[in-house]
Amino acid sequence: METILNFLPLTENERDKFAAATPNAVHLFRPVDSMLPKARTGTDEDYARATVILGCAPPEQVANAPRLKWLQTWSAGVDPYLQQGVLPESAMLTSAVGAYGQAVSEHMFATLLSLYKRLHLYRNFQREHRWEELGEVKTLVNATVLIAGTGDIGSAFARLVKAMGAQTVGLRRDASKCAEGIDEMYPLSMLDDWLPKADVVALILPHAPETTGLMDACRIATMKADAVLLNGGRGTAVDNTALAQAMARGHLWGAGLDVTTPEPLPADHPLWTVPNCIITPHVAGGEHLAATRERIVSIALDNLHHYLAGGPLKNRIK
Amino acid sequence: METILNFLPLTENERDKFAAATPNAVHLFRPVDSMLPKARTGTDEDYARATVILGCAPPEQVANAPRLKWLQTWSAGVDPYLQQGVLPESAMLTSAVGAYGQAVSEHMFATLLSLYKRLHLYRNFQREHRWEELGEVKTLVNATVLIAGTGDIGSAFARLVKAMGAQTVGLRRDASKCAEGIDEMYPLSMLDDWLPKADVVALILPHAPETTGLMDACRIATMKADAVLLNGGRGTAVDNTALAQAMARGHLWGAGLDVTTPEPLPADHPLWTVPNCIITPHVAGGEHLAATRERIVSIALDNLHHYLAGGPLKNRIK
Repeated sequence: METILNFLPLTENERDKFAAATPNAVHLFRPVDSMLPKARTGTDEDYARATVILGCAPPEQVANAPRLKWLQTWSAGVDPYLQQGVLPESAMLTSAVGAYGQAVSEHMFATLLSLYKRLHLYRNFQREHRWEELGEVKTLVNATVLIAGTGDIGSAFARLVKAMGAQTVGLRRDASKCAEGIDEMYPLSMLDDWLPKADVVALILPHAPETTGLMDACRIATMKADAVLLNGGRGTAVDNTALAQAMARGHLWGAGLDVTTPEPLPADHPLWTVPNCIITPHVAGGEHLAATRERIVSIALDNLHHYLAGGPLKNRIK
Repeated sequence: METILNFLPLTENERDKFAAATPNAVHLFRPVDSMLPKARTGTDEDYARATVILGCAPPEQVANAPRLKWLQTWSAGVDPYLQQGVLPESAMLTSAVGAYGQAVSEHMFATLLSLYKRLHLYRNFQREHRWEELGEVKTLVNATVLIAGTGDIGSAFARLVKAMGAQTVGLRRDASKCAEGIDEMYPLSMLDDWLPKADVVALILPHAPETTGLMDACRIATMKADAVLLNGGRGTAVDNTALAQAMARGHLWGAGLDVTTPEPLPADHPLWTVPNCIITPHVAGGEHLAATRERIVSIALDNLHHYLAGGPLKNRIK
């Protein structure tokens, strides 16, 4: 008999749907208050019994679930569960990739517009009750926006900037695959050709050896002096120290970082005080937008139906 | 013979076009550094000779231009020139209405997204080098955006929020006139019916007796508790003290004000310290966006051609 250990925070209606989907299983509902990857949750006995886990249970607890056949995360990334000894050899792993496109793209877009209209600097003035203009602002009309990583999030971001009049250039590993909102697609290996031409460089790249340190001092230097750099993927893609140094010299119109390395960004890191750098604490995704939670729940419920029917699972990693 | 007193800040190419348009006139080019309505400019003799003025010359100087037949402003509003004794009785007056739609709508949109994603509060945290999340954010997907004043700016704003998934309701004096981007149009007299239904209330109203104090304490109270109020028209449309009081009690998700009354907002005004109020110092329009200046120049040049050909002028006020 299947034992489903369900950590998803569900509405009553959603809970009924999960229960209705599993009439012949033991369904342990252990809803969390927050989908943040912090809290330990569930009892040792829960893990000992579980054949299915829905949600990002702490890896050290998952390691004590010997009967586990399938884990569905609520995150898009699944690195912690791929470590040796966390999942049983034969267990399947599926992610919630696709749930975060709207939330992360909108956050990056808002950050970009705030930089373009200097709202971050007017905010500084507001704290001093200072009514004083700051001059030139920018528009996306006719801007060239380079988007490195054109999955769910990159494609949603492309559609937003296009709606304001920008041209979009996408970079992805396999440039033969197109993506909605991307006007022109090139392989990621052409990054160096496009950096000097872009008004906005938006990084939405997964953590991987080839993306680590991608935006180093040299590449940052080849960006236009009035360009904007956005990072909404993984902090490791940008050399934050090099970025702070370049911006301290006046390079770039601005930067918007929702991710850094390490996280949290240390309190003494020079990026905190770069005037045209907007830093948010890795909040673009998460569960801050109600629609994100709803999509995660929908992905998990769909996959639960597939699992029980013996069909293939969506977003399968292993 | 016509004598054209031209205060527009022009590129060399634009200046050539103005000169080419006026082969039989005296064309006095007196370009200003900034189109802000501050500086006195031009000599007494310039004004004594001028039959045409292009640009917002100070009204007290315009009053000394007895030969004046036409004034083209670079502003959308023309109140100062309608005062008794500024323009000769028979002189024509035209505005640059239409030049500001892009700049003001984009600024209001950026302010709205900053409020929705709490970027203004994360900015406060950044100043303290504080990596800490602030919870729920909002999206425009399926939001109802009420736009009071659906001219050039309101229509452009409507198109931006629609592109992010909002529904738009327009209010204007004559509701039989539609506007691009507005899904439903009603007369301004139906404001009280729509205020409780709107997720965003955007005011882009001209200064007029019927718009003064429009958003008073009662009307602010009828807005949804988590709504956003934006003002990009004239500061007089909102009772700023009532707004500060309502927001201090926790009413509204946020407010974004580019205009206040009076301006500058006094340093001791309570609005400055309302956490969810974003204040910018009447900079949405002006010449902060290059495209605005280009459109003003284009309107003035078109009208100059019409004027010299004896045809009707665009944007004519009197």
